[in-house]
Amino acid sequence: MESLSLVQRVLTGEPRAVARAISKVEDGAEGASDLMKAVFPHTGRGLVVGITGSPGAGKSSLVDKLAGLYRKRGERVGIVAVDPSSPFSGGAILGDRIRMQALGLDPGVFIRSMATRGNLGGLARATVDAVAILDAAGYEKIIVETVGVGQDEVEIVKTADVSVVVLVPGMGDDIQAIKAGIMEIGDVFVINKADRDGVLRTEKELEALLSLAHRPDGWSPPIVKTVATENKGLEELAAAVESYRDFQKDAEGARGRRRAVARWRILELLRERLLARALEGDGVGERLDALSLEVADKRRDPYSAVDEIINASEL
Amino acid sequence: MESLSLVQRVLTGEPRAVARAISKVEDGAEGASDLMKAVFPHTGRGLVVGITGSPGAGKSSLVDKLAGLYRKRGERVGIVAVDPSSPFSGGAILGDRIRMQALGLDPGVFIRSMATRGNLGGLARATVDAVAILDAAGYEKIIVETVGVGQDEVEIVKTADVSVVVLVPGMGDDIQAIKAGIMEIGDVFVINKADRDGVLRTEKELEALLSLAHRPDGWSPPIVKTVATENKGLEELAAAVESYRDFQKDAEGARGRRRAVARWRILELLRERLLARALEGDGVGERLDALSLEVADKRRDPYSAVDEIINASEL
Repeated sequence: MESLSLVQRVLTGEPRAVARAISKVEDGAEGASDLMKAVFPHTGRGLVVGITGSPGAGKSSLVDKLAGLYRKRGERVGIVAVDPSSPFSGGAILGDRIRMQALGLDPGVFIRSMATRGNLGGLARATVDAVAILDAAGYEKIIVETVGVGQDEVEIVKTADVSVVVLVPGMGDDIQAIKAGIMEIGDVFVINKADRDGVLRTEKELEALLSLAHRPDGWSPPIVKTVATENKGLEELAAAVESYRDFQKDAEGARGRRRAVARWRILELLRERLLARALEGDGVGERLDALSLEVADKRRDPYSAVDEIINASEL
Repeated sequence: MESLSLVQRVLTGEPRAVARAISKVEDGAEGASDLMKAVFPHTGRGLVVGITGSPGAGKSSLVDKLAGLYRKRGERVGIVAVDPSSPFSGGAILGDRIRMQALGLDPGVFIRSMATRGNLGGLARATVDAVAILDAAGYEKIIVETVGVGQDEVEIVKTADVSVVVLVPGMGDDIQAIKAGIMEIGDVFVINKADRDGVLRTEKELEALLSLAHRPDGWSPPIVKTVATENKGLEELAAAVESYRDFQKDAEGARGRRRAVARWRILELLRERLLARALEGDGVGERLDALSLEVADKRRDPYSAVDEIINASEL
């Protein structure tokens, strides 16, 4: 019942309730599953924009300015920043506290950063749930920012309605920097810091790579040049995001993409639930501790350790 | 039996057997578990060096030159490159084919790239298994290179004996680029492309950040400046890697780290096995397809879909 009233408060868009609901799903707390079941039917109204790119590409400035532009249009904006890179300290983003000072005073903007916690994983799952909560709470634009280009981060960005990949001039020198895979997830490309040397070269290389790619939906991703810190190119970025959203509405491939995302969400959640359940078994936690020690000391291999835990959790 | 003889061939260091064994664990093929059980007792002799950093930091050149240096010392080198950024195409690293031409002709170097495949995840697990196979095959140095700074990539680098974080001058401008978490995983820091402007500033910023960090083992990570493409600073990097290896031998914290790695390996493997087993159940695959469609069409929420799969897989 308590979580039902939390849902009602989320649906009226109350920021404190939104924050509490996100904490619940992040912690995998009691009632998180019921909460999400109740929230889900109210999702699908907001536009989810995923933004990814390398560290140093200026993603945070870009996100802040894009959020500012949406605010000027009268829209409420949710920002979910994924920071998987702090496994020990629990993931405080250094820059996060700074940006909170600029945007955080605006009641029409909700900012939340998500970090890795605990053994069960579930960062990607928790992020997607946080986006769903913001969507149900009536935020018209939800921006998901991922730092890095890791496996989970790519998956998270793929769940967005529109995925934006941010590059900077000069990285194009390095063949490693332009990966086929990152190319494939971008619905819109941004060359940020476009006042720097080498913009043209990066643009040409990007165009060449994009001309090689074959998207199943037939979309040709636009390239937008921005200087986020000077507010340049943001209108063009917003227009590019909308153009893909409009294209996608009628696209043949859109349903296939939604289905792949749904499948991924189910599998992520299933993985987490199965592991949690296996570790709940009587004495399994202690056995895991003992086996970790044996494996660390090379007295046992991890594969037979897992056999033992699976057998123990079935008793 | 067939996989026993494969193990014997791996242990004699036969490159073809090593390649086949890695494919087996990567695919999660029949017999992969027995293979790893047999390989495990022969691991622990090689030195595993993890190298991570942002795209464009020049990691690949650095890895290649470091491998070259080890080769000159008469050591066999295994290189495992993790490329999680190509979810659609199956992960061909553009630069990979190029580097194969330079190093691949040397029979003392084994290069393998690992990519995300399929639904079950397991990239991190497969990478760690590949490293164990190379170790058992007698490669004295095994270099694990991860592109990006995602959650899984951080975990992979943490499993190395010595973790190297590569930065480049100029990224330090961007507060987002220097993350507390990446700082914490580095046993050795490299400022590559150290002939560029801004080296001193990056070095100062890095020193300041490192002075704030508190490592449980009391180690002060050295900072090495390199220009990999010109073979500068590589001897210093190799020496820094060895100094941490030597330090760690006697360190109080080393056993704790090994235990945390062992625990992580067990949990990764457990997660994968539990999911695989759940999906094997009669009709579960078909049910997953149908549920993905229902979730995609918003006729159902993912949480109740997972409830249903868990119930079905228990029948």
